[in-house]
Amino acid sequence: MRVIDFRIRPPYKNFLETVMYTGATRRDRITRDIGFEPSLAAQQKSVPLLLAEMDAAGITSGVVVGRNSGALGSVPNAVVKEFCDLHPGRFLPVASLDLARWKQGPADVDAALSAGFKAIGLEPGGATSPMHTDDRRLYPLYAHCESQGAILIIMTGGNAGPDISYTAPERIDRVLGDFPALRIVSSHGNWPWVQQILHIAFRRPNLYLSPDYLLANMSGMDDYIKAADSWLSERFLYASAFPFAPAKAYLDWFRSLPIRPNNMERILYHNAAELLGLD
Amino acid sequence: MRVIDFRIRPPYKNFLETVMYTGATRRDRITRDIGFEPSLAAQQKSVPLLLAEMDAAGITSGVVVGRNSGALGSVPNAVVKEFCDLHPGRFLPVASLDLARWKQGPADVDAALSAGFKAIGLEPGGATSPMHTDDRRLYPLYAHCESQGAILIIMTGGNAGPDISYTAPERIDRVLGDFPALRIVSSHGNWPWVQQILHIAFRRPNLYLSPDYLLANMSGMDDYIKAADSWLSERFLYASAFPFAPAKAYLDWFRSLPIRPNNMERILYHNAAELLGLD
Amino acid sequence: MRVIDFRIRPPYKNFLETVMYTGATRRDRITRDIGFEPSLAAQQKSVPLLLAEMDAAGITSGVVVGRNSGALGSVPNAVVKEFCDLHPGRFLPVASLDLARWKQGPADVDAALSAGFKAIGLEPGGATSPMHTDDRRLYPLYAHCESQGAILIIMTGGNAGPDISYTAPERIDRVLGDFPALRIVSSHGNWPWVQQILHIAFRRPNLYLSPDYLLANMSGMDDYIKAADSWLSERFLYASAFPFAPAKAYLDWFRSLPIRPNNMERILYHNAAELLGLD
Repeated sequence: MRVIDFRIRPPYKNFLETVMYTGATRRDRITRDIGFEPSLAAQQKSVPLLLAEMDAAGITSGVVVGRNSGALGSVPNAVVKEFCDLHPGRFLPVASLDLARWKQGPADVDAALSAGFKAIGLEPGGATSPMHTDDRRLYPLYAHCESQGAILIIMTGGNAGPDISYTAPERIDRVLGDFPALRIVSSHGNWPWVQQILHIAFRRPNLYLSPDYLLANMSGMDDYIKAADSWLSERFLYASAFPFAPAKAYLDWFRSLPIRPNNMERILYHNAAELLGLD
Repeated sequence: MRVIDFRIRPPYKNFLETVMYTGATRRDRITRDIGFEPSLAAQQKSVPLLLAEMDAAGITSGVVVGRNSGALGSVPNAVVKEFCDLHPGRFLPVASLDLARWKQGPADVDAALSAGFKAIGLEPGGATSPMHTDDRRLYPLYAHCESQGAILIIMTGGNAGPDISYTAPERIDRVLGDFPALRIVSSHGNWPWVQQILHIAFRRPNLYLSPDYLLANMSGMDDYIKAADSWLSERFLYASAFPFAPAKAYLDWFRSLPIRPNNMERILYHNAAELLGLD
Repeated sequence: MRVIDFRIRPPYKNFLETVMYTGATRRDRITRDIGFEPSLAAQQKSVPLLLAEMDAAGITSGVVVGRNSGALGSVPNAVVKEFCDLHPGRFLPVASLDLARWKQGPADVDAALSAGFKAIGLEPGGATSPMHTDDRRLYPLYAHCESQGAILIIMTGGNAGPDISYTAPERIDRVLGDFPALRIVSSHGNWPWVQQILHIAFRRPNLYLSPDYLLANMSGMDDYIKAADSWLSERFLYASAFPFAPAKAYLDWFRSLPIRPNNMERILYHNAAELLGLD
C-alpha cells in the first residue's frame, strides 16, 4: 500500500531556522505530550535519517509545506522546490504565500502553479499582520484559487494565530460557503473545534481535514476517527506534521486505529492522490 | 407506550416543493451518512407509506413543523393545518412565521394559537434576510410568546443559517436568559455545539433539546444520551426529522440506546405531551 | 497523603447570605444532578460538620474563595481572613476584588498580599457591571499581578456571567498570551468549553485548570481526566466547590478516577502547594 504523509517539514536549509527546529526543547516536549518519542531524524536534523524513517514506515511520498510567517519563520518556495527536485517522486512541493503582499496573491498563485507546485499553503494567523481565515484581504486570493482549481492548504488549527479566535469555526465556514468550488485542506484539522469542524465538513463537501499530530491522544481524537471511518472517509488526509510527530512511529500508531482497511487506504493514500491530481 | 415524534414533515402538497423532497439525492446521502437506509415513504413521497411506517413503529403522533424560508422553501400554515385535520389525533400542527414581516410577529402568533396550532416554529437563519437567534427584530415576538405562554420551536442546530455562527450558543442563551418564562425547543439540539448547549440546558430550565436525526452516530451523541438519561431527562424530546431519518428505523435505533425505561418513556412521550398541553 | 481542596465556601457569616446558601433548593438540585447527595454540612450550615467531613475525607486544607458580586452576593475579605485565622493551617484565604473600583485594583492587590492572602480571586462576569475576562479595565490589574507574582483565580467556567460568552475561550486565551508570567487558575475549568480550554492549556503553560464540581458526570469529563493523567498532570487542581459538591463524597469519587497514583498525588496536593508557595 502506498502512503502519502500530507505534512512534512524536512531538516533542510531554511527549515532549520524555523521555530520547529530552533525550538527543539519545546517541540520535543510536545512530541512527548502527545505520546511519542521524538524522531532521531528531527533531533539530529538529518535528511538521510528522515528518508530512512520514511522507508521503514512505507511512506511513499511526503507533502512538503513551507512557511512564510513573521513569528514562526519562513522558507523560500525555491528551497522547498529544490528539496523536492533533489528527491524526485518522493516529495511534493507546496508554495507558501507572503500575505503581507496580499494584493499580489493571485499573481503569486499563478507563478507557483506554473513552477510545478502542487498546492498553495496559507498561514493567515501567522502573518506579520495576523489575519483571520475570512479576512477580506484574502478574498481576491480565494476567488482566484477557485477559478484556477488550485488546492489550498490553510493552517487553521492548533496554534494558528495570536489566540484561539484564529481557529474559530465560523471563519473557515464562511470561506467554504462563499467559494463552494474551492477545495480547502484544514491543516491540524481545526483542532480543538472538533465537533464544530465535523459539522462543517458534513455540510461543506469542499473541506478536507488533516488533524495530523494533534490527532494523537488529544481531546476529540475519537470523534475524528469515528468520522474518518464513516461519512468523512473520502476527505480525511493522513499527516504527521513531522518534526512534531515522528514519521514512522506516528504512522504505526495511525495504522492501529479502528478504521476499516478500505477507508484506511483512502486516508493514507487515495484521498491525497486524487486531491493533488497524482497517478 | 405512546410515542410522539416531535419533527415530521410529511410528503404532502407544498412540503414536496421544499428542498428536503426536491433534493432527494442530497437528503438520502445524509440519511446514509448517519447510518440509516432512506425510508420508502420518503423516497416514494407517499403519505400512506408514512402512516404505515408510523403504525409499525408505534408512533402515536407526529408534530408537523412547516417552514417559511426563502432558500429552504415554504409551506403555508393552512396546508399544515389541513394535513393535521385530515388525520385527527395523529398529527399536531406547528405554525411557521414569516420573519420578513417581523413586526406582525405578535399578531401572527395570536392568529396561529386561535387557529389551533400547538406551537410556533421559527427558522431565523433561514429567513430571506437571515437573523441570528438573538436578533433584536425577534424580541417583540419573544416577549409576546412569553406573555401568552406560547411554545417556540427554533431551528438552531445543524445547517440553521448561512454559516455556523447561526447556531452559536451565546445567541440562544441570551434569549433564554432574557425570557425565563418562555419555553424554547431547540430543533436539531444546537448541534454541533453539544457541550455548550448542555451547559445552557443545565443553567436554563426553559430550554428543551431535540437533536433528532443529528443525534445518530454523529460527534457528541454520547454526551446528549448521558444527559438525556440523567439531569436532562425531563427536557429531551424524541424526533426523527423525517424525511431525513426514517420514522421507524430511527425509533428502533433510539429505543436501543442506554436510557433507562422511565426516562425513555418521558423522552418518547410525556415531555412532549406536557409541553404541548396534551392529555 | 495530604489533600488541598482548592475551592471551599464554608457556612460562615456572610457566606450564609450568598446565593449558594440562600438558594439551597437550587443548589441541592445541582448537587443531585451531578450525582451526589448534598452534604449535611451544607444543608445544616454547620462549620463543625464541614470540619468533620474534611477530617473523614483526609482533606488537609481548603482554599477559601470569597466573592464580591452584585447578583451572587459578597463576602468581605476580612471575614474570609477571620475564618481562616480561626482554623490555623486548615484554611487558606483568597481575597476577592471589587471590580466596580477597578482603578484601585493594583492597590487592592498589594493590600491583600500584605494582609496574608494567598491569591486574588476575580469573578468579572459576576460584577455589578459584568466584564469579560479580557475587558480592558482588568488589564492594569493583570499587569500588576504579573509584576508582583500574584496568583489569580478567575471564575471563568459554569455560570460565570450573564451568558455563555463570559466563558468563551478566546477571552482567557488573550489574557494568558498578553501576560505570560501571570499564573491563572480557571475555576470551574472553563466548562463547558472543554476541548478549547484543553488546547489553551496545552499552549499556555501559565494556565491551571480546576473544573471542580462541574467535572463530575458532566459532558467533557473524560477529556479533562485523560489530560489530567498525562500532559496536564502538573496543572490540574482538585476542588469540590463546596457547598455545590459534598467535600468527602466528591473526594472519594475523584480518587476512584483512572488517574495514576503519581499524578493523583500531584493533583490532590503538590500542584496547589507549589502554586501557593506552601511547604
